[in-house]
Amino acid sequence: MRSLKLSKAFTLIEPGPVVLVTTHDGKQNNIMTLSWTMVMDFTPKFAITTGPWNYSFRALKKTRECVIAIPTVDMLDKVVGIGTCSGADTDKFTRFGLTPVPGRAVKAPLIQECLANIECRVIDIVKKHDIVVLEAVAAYVDTSRKEKRTVHAVGDGTFIVDGRTLDRRKLMSSKLPAGV
Amino acid sequence: MRSLKLSKAFTLIEPGPVVLVTTHDGKQNNIMTLSWTMVMDFTPKFAITTGPWNYSFRALKKTRECVIAIPTVDMLDKVVGIGTCSGADTDKFTRFGLTPVPGRAVKAPLIQECLANIECRVIDIVKKHDIVVLEAVAAYVDTSRKEKRTVHAVGDGTFIVDGRTLDRRKLMSSKLPAGV
Repeated sequence: MRSLKLSKAFTLIEPGPVVLVTTHDGKQNNIMTLSWTMVMDFTPKFAITTGPWNYSFRALKKTRECVIAIPTVDMLDKVVGIGTCSGADTDKFTRFGLTPVPGRAVKAPLIQECLANIECRVIDIVKKHDIVVLEAVAAYVDTSRKEKRTVHAVGDGTFIVDGRTLDRRKLMSSKLPAGV
Repeated sequence: MRSLKLSKAFTLIEPGPVVLVTTHDGKQNNIMTLSWTMVMDFTPKFAITTGPWNYSFRALKKTRECVIAIPTVDMLDKVVGIGTCSGADTDKFTRFGLTPVPGRAVKAPLIQECLANIECRVIDIVKKHDIVVLEAVAAYVDTSRKEKRTVHAVGDGTFIVDGRTLDRRKLMSSKLPAGV
């Protein structure tokens, strides 16, 4: 995995892929599947919606750290599997054959098999709405990977795979942030 | 446009498409392009990140209403155009050849040319983070439309078009909310 400039990290979340969020509660690693994410700034700052109904939330709240990992379409069955069991009784890294890799700034692990990983610190929890506000502190992309297509959850059990990419850089030049 | 059950409305936002948000400030209609959205609940409740830097924010704050319209790939140049000019000096419906259609519960207009439209009420503004929390009150889909592929902004001026859809309904049955 290669380091990615922090000014580009928001481009991993902005298209709205399903993500995996890892935590480390002091004893063990855990992973959750999440589709409820939002870019909030280019700094980069992200929101996720989660709360006490997710086992990972306890570790997130306690450690105020996590990693957002971006899986690709070849990992879809693992992504769905991770989202349909609980860290309360399952070591998800072992069960789904994923490799935890130590991060640089947080204790939550990167996932080696993913296309990209973003180390994040919790900067606020908006309890009223179960929104956790995160700030990215390091980001990585696996540039050697052939499969780069991510998946988008529809929410009804179906998933949309990335298709072709269209370039509108010229038309958008006035709106693009620096460093992307 | 056909009515869509409110319990299915979140499936329009969950995949993370670029959306258009319309407002009506009492005098005129406006539209903004937005990629910073998040599903927060199946009720359905959504978050968007926007603030005083967007001309539409004034109307959103004053009227506490908007419509989230979902454009498709054939509308991409309009979507980018809408995102790179301001309602302060532009009637965007006229300039981009879009047709405002009266909604049922809100004064912000639906966009006839879009694949889907969701009438929303503002239920909270989290000022600290520029997050506007919306509740859907009516939703519609144009079932007669051939082009159904939405686009996902990467944030660097490129856009990913929807590709194929994969079905994991069986694997996910334990997690799917009622009514989808």
